[in-house]
Parts: sequence; C-alpha cells; structure tokens
Amino acid sequence: MEDKSLKEDKKYAADIDSITKAHARIKPYIHKTPVLSSETLNSIAGKSLFFKCECFQKGGAFKFRGASNTVFSLEDEQAAKGVATHSSGNHAAALALAAKMRGIPAYIVIPKNAPKCKVENVRRYGGQIIWCEPTMQSREETANKVLNETGAVLVHPYNDPRTISGQGTLSLEFLDQVPQLDTLIVPISGGGLISGITIGAKSINPGIRVIAAEPKGADDAAQSKASGQIITLAQTNTIADGLRASLGSLTWPIVRDLVDDIITVEDKEIVDAMKLCYEILKVAIEPSGAIGLAAVLSDSFKQNPAFKDSRNIGIVLSGGNVDLGVLWESLHLHG
Amino acid sequence: MEDKSLKEDKKYAADIDSITKAHARIKPYIHKTPVLSSETLNSIAGKSLFFKCECFQKGGAFKFRGASNTVFSLEDEQAAKGVATHSSGNHAAALALAAKMRGIPAYIVIPKNAPKCKVENVRRYGGQIIWCEPTMQSREETANKVLNETGAVLVHPYNDPRTISGQGTLSLEFLDQVPQLDTLIVPISGGGLISGITIGAKSINPGIRVIAAEPKGADDAAQSKASGQIITLAQTNTIADGLRASLGSLTWPIVRDLVDDIITVEDKEIVDAMKLCYEILKVAIEPSGAIGLAAVLSDSFKQNPAFKDSRNIGIVLSGGNVDLGVLWESLHLHG
Repeated sequence: MEDKSLKEDKKYAADIDSITKAHARIKPYIHKTPVLSSETLNSIAGKSLFFKCECFQKGGAFKFRGASNTVFSLEDEQAAKGVATHSSGNHAAALALAAKMRGIPAYIVIPKNAPKCKVENVRRYGGQIIWCEPTMQSREETANKVLNETGAVLVHPYNDPRTISGQGTLSLEFLDQVPQLDTLIVPISGGGLISGITIGAKSINPGIRVIAAEPKGADDAAQSKASGQIITLAQTNTIADGLRASLGSLTWPIVRDLVDDIITVEDKEIVDAMKLCYEILKVAIEPSGAIGLAAVLSDSFKQNPAFKDSRNIGIVLSGGNVDLGVLWESLHLHG
Repeated sequence: MEDKSLKEDKKYAADIDSITKAHARIKPYIHKTPVLSSETLNSIAGKSLFFKCECFQKGGAFKFRGASNTVFSLEDEQAAKGVATHSSGNHAAALALAAKMRGIPAYIVIPKNAPKCKVENVRRYGGQIIWCEPTMQSREETANKVLNETGAVLVHPYNDPRTISGQGTLSLEFLDQVPQLDTLIVPISGGGLISGITIGAKSINPGIRVIAAEPKGADDAAQSKASGQIITLAQTNTIADGLRASLGSLTWPIVRDLVDDIITVEDKEIVDAMKLCYEILKVAIEPSGAIGLAAVLSDSFKQNPAFKDSRNIGIVLSGGNVDLGVLWESLHLHG
C-alpha cells in the first residue's frame, strides 16, 4: 500500500506546530465540541463510531476555528481595517462572529440568492452585508471594490495557512477525547478542514487513516486524486450546499499526498444519513454535515478490504446550518 | 417568600444518599450527557442558559436513568423473571434497553395507536411487545395478565423511589458541569424527573431555585400546586405528548413542598422553542424536550420579579424521540 505518512522533508501549508499555536490562540473563543456515540448506529455500521459535533461550534460549523485563527492572528493595525470575504456559506457567518469578538468590522459580499438562514447568521453576528449578483464575476468584483475602499483583509475560506491550521485544531481535540480512533472520515469541499485535520492527526498518530467523503455530484476531489492533478468541475449537482467548492493550491498537495482515500456518495445516501442523525443521534445537521455517516454506511466503504481493520471511526459532523423548511423539501425530494 | 428548602425532618421518596447510590450504580451504563450553550440564545433570553442534553441519553431521553437504576437494583432471582410496563413513551424504550443490558426480558404493553418511532425504539432494544387497545382499562388488564403469566416486576415510569433516584442523577452531573447554576427549569408530567432533580440539586446547593415547565393544555401540576392537592385532568390537549401524565403519590409531596414555581406555556411557545433548538442549538428534540426553553422565554418568566435575580439557568432538554414527519406536520399546524 502506498505510503500516506507525514514526511519531515515535505512542506505543507500547516504543520503540528502551527496547529498547536492556533489551538492556544483560539481556545478562549471556540467551543470544545462534544463527541457523541450511539449503540444503534454502531450496530448499523458494524463499527464503533464517534461523532465530533461541530454543528455545536460557534456559528454552527467548524468554520469558526479557521476564521477565528485568522482574525486573532492579525496585527492590530491590519485588524483595525477589518476583514472581508465573498461567501454565502458558513465561512461568512464564522468570519463575522470572529470579527465581532475582536471588535473589528467584517465586510461580507453575499449573492442575492443565498439561503435565508445563512444571511441571518451573518447579520446576527454584526457582519456588514454587501449584496452582489449570483455570479463568480460579480462576487469578485464587488469584493475587490470593498477591499479597495476599506483596506480590509480578504480571508479565504480554505486556501490560507491560517485557515487550515485553525481547522486542524479539531483533530487535537478529537484525538484527545477518543485516543483509540484508528480512522477519521471528513467531508471534503475546498479541502481546508481535511487538510488541517490530516496534518494534525497524522502528526499525533502516524498510523491513523484519513478518508474524505464527497458527494458524487461534486466529486472534483476524487477526480483530482485519481488523475494526479486538480480537476475543477464546470457545474455541481448535490444537496450538500457546503461541499461544492474546488480544491485550492494549498489544500491539494495535502489531499494528494496524505489523505488515504476518497469515498463518494449519492445524495440519497446523504439524506438517509441525515435522517439517522436527526432520529437516532438527535443532532440537527445540514446535508454536508451528514456525509461522513453516509460514507461509513456506503457499500464503497463496507466492501473495500482496505478498510476492514478500521474499528474505531471518528466522523466529523461539520455543520448544522439549515432552514428547517428547505430541509423538509429536500427530504421529500430525495427521500 | 415561602421556604422551599430541604428539611431534614421531612421524608421523601428519594434523598441525596439514594441518588448518589443510584449514580454509582448506573454510571457504567448511562451517557454523561453534554451541556451546550449559545450566545445567540443567551441574548434572546437575557440570561446565561445552559442546556443539559438528555436527548443524547441512551434511548433518546432521561428515562433511561430511572429505568436502569430500577433494573440494576433488582435481586438476581427477581430480575430473572423480567420487567414490564404499559407505556407508549420513552419509558418503555428505556426499560427495554436497561433489561437488554442486564440480559433479562422486558414485556412492554403498548396501545395500538402509539407513535411509530417509539414502538420502533422498543423493538430495537429487544423489548417483547404486547399490543392492547388504546384505553387505560385495556392497558392495565393486559399488563396484569402479563405480570401473572411471567412473574415480571412492574416498573412504574415515575411513581417509584428507584425511578425518582435514577432521574435525580441528572442533577449531580449538571451541578458538577456548571457549578454556577442558580436556577433549574425542568419539564413536569408525572413528576419523576423534577422530583429527583429537586432533591439532588437542593441537597447540593440549598439556595438553587427549581421551576417546573408545563403545557397549558395539561396543567394538572400547576392546578395541584395552586389548590394544595393532586388534581387530575379528565383530558389533556397539548403537542407535548410526553407531558400528559398526572402527579403520583410519591412525586406530589416533593412538587408541593420543594418546587419553587410552575410556569405554564402555550403549544405555540413550545413550537417556537423547538425551532430555536433545531436552528440555533442544532439539537433535535421532541416537543416535551423544548418546554424548558419555552418557559424561560415566556412572559410569565420574564415579567415575574421573583425570577429577576436568576442569572445562570440550567434547562433540561429531556428527550428527542420524534417522527420527523409528525414533527413537520406539528410545526405547520402550530407554527
């Protein structure tokens, strides 16, 4: 089997030192999220499953780890001008919240068609919303205009060493809470979360296996890993609205070299896993958050002999921001 | 103000000693459930709120504490004949699970119209289901027949000292997790949960305030407390299906003497609180589970000068067993 262990001579955007420092930096601001387990889900999966509930993180998703690490890394002078991002997702709310905690402005460029609950989250945390058209061109132009006018720092949702180190702090907590973990299953989108977690977890436990979970309708990471180069998709089609981004220049090398495998799942499997999360685990998550459970219950996982010796599996429930109304329509559509 | 502190000379169905022993007995079997908090909910309430998530308890509700304490209290010979109950609710599933853990049979008499998810829970935990007509007469007759045939022990869902002490273990955990709690808000139905919690919490912290939360459409406890004697209602009308029982002979004296107040809320307030639990706290609960949050957000609580100095409020999210489909219909009906 190919060697997926961390090598000293390879340099990535984060290392155990940057992650440990990030943890010390953000610890006063983040929730140490609990780990839940369920005998019922264990017997369905035939494995011991441990769920790291990042839906209980401040802002409702893991994104606050990276955002707060970036915001609290800034020098005072730079910070005073504020931070900015163009995003309709959990990163926007997380950045607004981190900026509010530091007492600096956050400028959030949001496309007009963004989900209501995510816009409300940004507003709740005091983010200054700048509307744009729902195209990438309009997002970038509007963001550039904001940056020019304010001098704010653009904070990328995943392709930034500070973001990656912040997300990696999850692995320090998780391996401390459940030392016997032999496998981690992590949602993949832009790759910030899995990059930080992979670096952190493999530094602590070189033998640990890290598997990415990706929707079939947005399987750019699986295609990238198969072909050995970053593939971006012209369009995506998945219920998991948080998992539609493409890998970045900083996350790709980590995914390529260190992530052990990528499992892709159908939307139907994501919806089934969501129902289990609500009905068995009693955790309210968004579709993207349920994909790790979908992966461990999929035939691709169960029938792969490479995973036969995975016994204690850590699953990252990455976020819980969902309009209940929209959720229900999705369940009917895909259920 | 009336004295609601524990007196040495009064004898109740549980005391700190029986609760501490129950805790030692059931600790290997229960989850120590996490406490969650949310700045957003704190600002809505104007108080610091701490949510004890018993929806994450085994069986999906606090009931497993009492059921496991009773099952593991039984002598071997008695236990071998099994346990029984007539219930369509969380107690039935909890008893089946506790019996399964001890390796003894559980006979569960269930009315034919019981909610699907609760029947499934009983089946999942290996309970032997005996169907009956949906009347109290048929429930009791069928249960008596089962007891006669099997010699099993009938386990009452709340009017039993072992059950009350088991539920009381929640207070030991909660006050250990959040020592600064000055007020607890606990759902009330048959009174087992609030009785155990009141005895436990006031033994540890005599100054702590314990408030019951009850649906207006099933306000027998509030009426009982107002009139000084147990009132039972001819019928109840509330979305909170777990809160329709009446006080028992063992729980009433504790509620009468030691519970500081009872706040009643409308179903609309329960549904609004449920939505906040799902959308802000990301916790999937049943209507009964949300009533504590509904109470703290109600005008009755906010405008009562007696609660003005309540700052750090512990809210028990008592359970999470709900059919998602039924939930959604309820939200539309009452939302």
